[in-house]
Amino acid sequence: MSANSAIAKLDELGRRLEAIEHAQSMLGVDEAVMMPLGGGEKRAEAMGTLAAIYHQMATAPEIGDWISAAEDEPLEGMQAAGVREWRRNYTNATCLTSEFVQKQVNARIRAEQLWRQLRPTGDWKGFLPAFEGVVATAREEALLRAEALGLSPYDAMMEQYDPGNRAADITPVFSKLKVFLKDFVPTALAHQEAKLAARPLKPLNAPFPIDRQKALGLVMMEAVGFDFDHGRLDISHHPFCGGVPTDVRMTTRYTEAEFLTSLMGILHETGHGMYEQNLPKEWSHWPSGKARGMSMHESQSLFIEKQVARSPEFWEWAMPHVREKLGDAAIAGWELEDVLAHVHFMERGLIRVDADEATYPLHVILRYEIEKDLIEGAMAPKDVPEAWDAKMQEYLGLSTIDNMKDGPMQDVHWPSGALGYFPSYTLGAIIAAQLWSAIERDIPDVREQMRHGQFVALNDWRRDKVWSQASMVSTPELLEQATGEKLDARHFQEHLERRYLG
Amino acid sequence: MSANSAIAKLDELGRRLEAIEHAQSMLGVDEAVMMPLGGGEKRAEAMGTLAAIYHQMATAPEIGDWISAAEDEPLEGMQAAGVREWRRNYTNATCLTSEFVQKQVNARIRAEQLWRQLRPTGDWKGFLPAFEGVVATAREEALLRAEALGLSPYDAMMEQYDPGNRAADITPVFSKLKVFLKDFVPTALAHQEAKLAARPLKPLNAPFPIDRQKALGLVMMEAVGFDFDHGRLDISHHPFCGGVPTDVRMTTRYTEAEFLTSLMGILHETGHGMYEQNLPKEWSHWPSGKARGMSMHESQSLFIEKQVARSPEFWEWAMPHVREKLGDAAIAGWELEDVLAHVHFMERGLIRVDADEATYPLHVILRYEIEKDLIEGAMAPKDVPEAWDAKMQEYLGLSTIDNMKDGPMQDVHWPSGALGYFPSYTLGAIIAAQLWSAIERDIPDVREQMRHGQFVALNDWRRDKVWSQASMVSTPELLEQATGEKLDARHFQEHLERRYLG
Repeated sequence: MSANSAIAKLDELGRRLEAIEHAQSMLGVDEAVMMPLGGGEKRAEAMGTLAAIYHQMATAPEIGDWISAAEDEPLEGMQAAGVREWRRNYTNATCLTSEFVQKQVNARIRAEQLWRQLRPTGDWKGFLPAFEGVVATAREEALLRAEALGLSPYDAMMEQYDPGNRAADITPVFSKLKVFLKDFVPTALAHQEAKLAARPLKPLNAPFPIDRQKALGLVMMEAVGFDFDHGRLDISHHPFCGGVPTDVRMTTRYTEAEFLTSLMGILHETGHGMYEQNLPKEWSHWPSGKARGMSMHESQSLFIEKQVARSPEFWEWAMPHVREKLGDAAIAGWELEDVLAHVHFMERGLIRVDADEATYPLHVILRYEIEKDLIEGAMAPKDVPEAWDAKMQEYLGLSTIDNMKDGPMQDVHWPSGALGYFPSYTLGAIIAAQLWSAIERDIPDVREQMRHGQFVALNDWRRDKVWSQASMVSTPELLEQATGEKLDARHFQEHLERRYLG
Repeated sequence: MSANSAIAKLDELGRRLEAIEHAQSMLGVDEAVMMPLGGGEKRAEAMGTLAAIYHQMATAPEIGDWISAAEDEPLEGMQAAGVREWRRNYTNATCLTSEFVQKQVNARIRAEQLWRQLRPTGDWKGFLPAFEGVVATAREEALLRAEALGLSPYDAMMEQYDPGNRAADITPVFSKLKVFLKDFVPTALAHQEAKLAARPLKPLNAPFPIDRQKALGLVMMEAVGFDFDHGRLDISHHPFCGGVPTDVRMTTRYTEAEFLTSLMGILHETGHGMYEQNLPKEWSHWPSGKARGMSMHESQSLFIEKQVARSPEFWEWAMPHVREKLGDAAIAGWELEDVLAHVHFMERGLIRVDADEATYPLHVILRYEIEKDLIEGAMAPKDVPEAWDAKMQEYLGLSTIDNMKDGPMQDVHWPSGALGYFPSYTLGAIIAAQLWSAIERDIPDVREQMRHGQFVALNDWRRDKVWSQASMVSTPELLEQATGEKLDARHFQEHLERRYLG
């Protein structure tokens, strides 16, 4: 087979897979935003069948031959990167036997169902057998992937979410960050206490009508650069960013009691959405044209939410808009410091998803350390509660030994078999800070621009360095290419010090 | 191959096709209701690719073998009917070569684009070459289908929309109806004039806020039997009923100036939606488990809209709800006769989609006669304007010879190649009246029930006789089975006389 025809076949396959992905993605959005309850059963059946059709299309034996033929040819740019990504995806999709996948699906369904049932009472004993089952199949999966990819088992699991991320690179970064945060968190909390004693937290003047909150959210989204000709904002129980690059569907949820959580959530999802909207459109059906991975994606949402939308400069520009959209009474008499006291509020807690940006990484590092041990067989599932409690005590001074619900049973990731995913969250935060440092180096007046609601230069930089690069290179390579240095938590630490000790 | 495995393969294929249909249907709804403009190009590409995937799945050569094997076995009920429908669908899907389909798609795209461009100015001369192209390919299609199905060319075209409908049965019914209506319309118009002279049409007290109109629509939908656990109502530019049987998506559009058009439109789509919602759920992936065809579908929407929702008994029940939802001022001082004068208002017009139930069939019969001649080669496309004008003059006393926009260029059907579809509209109206007659025979107090907002017996009858029968038999067989007689316009004519001359 000629390389040209192999490329043409991959191109055609890419378009077919993209059409199924388009359908899956939009059906997922519709399910969360529009679907009446009674539509759920048939929708699940249709989604399952579409996934089977997709898998069958993506794993056909002849695809391996097309990729091999394409690999023999001198290709460049997106096409060369695309063939590498085709190989990676094909290997990842074909390295598990269908018998194994069936066994794993069963283990996951059992564990997820039991988790949903037992989490409210924190019944660890009841959950453990299913958890052991799902960890056993995750270990088996890791070994199968490791063999196919020539990686260590945990690296092979991470490789699904972030190509190129290796525990050997991440562990020292996380260790350094952990040492820093164990010291930083109490210092920053003391600093906050002193500040709040001098200037108490002002209460929000609720209620905030939902249509006004929505109008405010839309103004902010548009200002930071979201393209409403290729996307929209709706409501769902769990906020997300879905859809396709040409039609990004974001959601939020509102409460009339408070507007900052929803607004920050909207800006977080806007970061995800802008990454998708600015990928190279003509390559959307090639794996090299898609967003790089979970860490890089999370870095884009955290960039907008944490670096931009919780900065003093952003709020200098934003406060008049809040007053205009929510009414003068909403934050009557507030000064910049009052809103910052809210958006920078820090506290130790048991729940990862409720954590602020300073304590959040400690939740993630705890999970990273435990799941790595679970995959490598260095820890048994039954020993997780004790390890969890010990680490919570050490990192945050909190105990979970009598509270499984808010301890190791709080997240859906492990019951659903997604081991290797957690590091993405904190890698995203570190990358976001590192990108911001690079931008401040390249655009010295970027903060001044933000103070005037100008985000064009900021977005041009990110379009050039990150978005347009799509999946041309691995996650660590993309970061180094964009910022000139390897992953380094220093920027994130300096960001925290500036924000919370300044 | 054993019949069992053939059935199992058809069953599995049915589930795969159903999943793609589910995606296509929901993507269509999303496009009309939610999608931002910029999402359109990629959506069209995804829909095109899904259609190609579907066609490839549905026309694979081995399917013919499965159907043949299944045909040799003694099957019953849904399965026996399903194999017949598999054969019909497979023959219809495979009887055109892909070269022909490509040629036809090109002819249709050209004609539709030119139609959209030239319709506003009624430029028939500019449109004619494209129209000739699309008619030529429709004739070729009809011959290919005719040969594969052993039918006459026009019957073969209708067979796609309504299995079993034959011109030999329909022509005499339409001819009789035409004779009746040519006489009835002027008589009814004179009757209306006299009535309105005695009791002038009361103006509507606009504006009617859209959220109130929506609340009224929802109450009516629920009352007549729409299941909101398996469906919802949204807004789109062109109202439709889409989605899947377990999740029916209806749309309407509102204007604040007037509420009756939207309300009647909602009730029309509700008729479509209830048909879908009440099909036999366990057979939704078999062709025998789907709605019977376009005539029967239209009969269900017209049953609700014309037989039920424009009846005096319905309005006796509905008027208090209108007052409650729209406010007392909405129809202040109105009596039953005032609302009926609006919902029974009749007038001669050039435009089919704006026509009332008495003049509408004349628009359809005109098109039926012309498109049959076009398919049979008895009329040339260039001669359509003259034929159209002559028939309009004869049937409705109106001329279109200098007005192509509101004459033969008014509908998208022919430019898009859908010849053989038009009769469904009027067959639906005739069937709806025939079903109503049968119901009044079987449930003598059905009008009294309606006067009290009771629709359960009415729906039970239709569920038993129509909805649960899905595609077990052909359209004419289903009608005869439900009503005890063959298609007969008498019931429709009596309905018109009762309503407009009573």
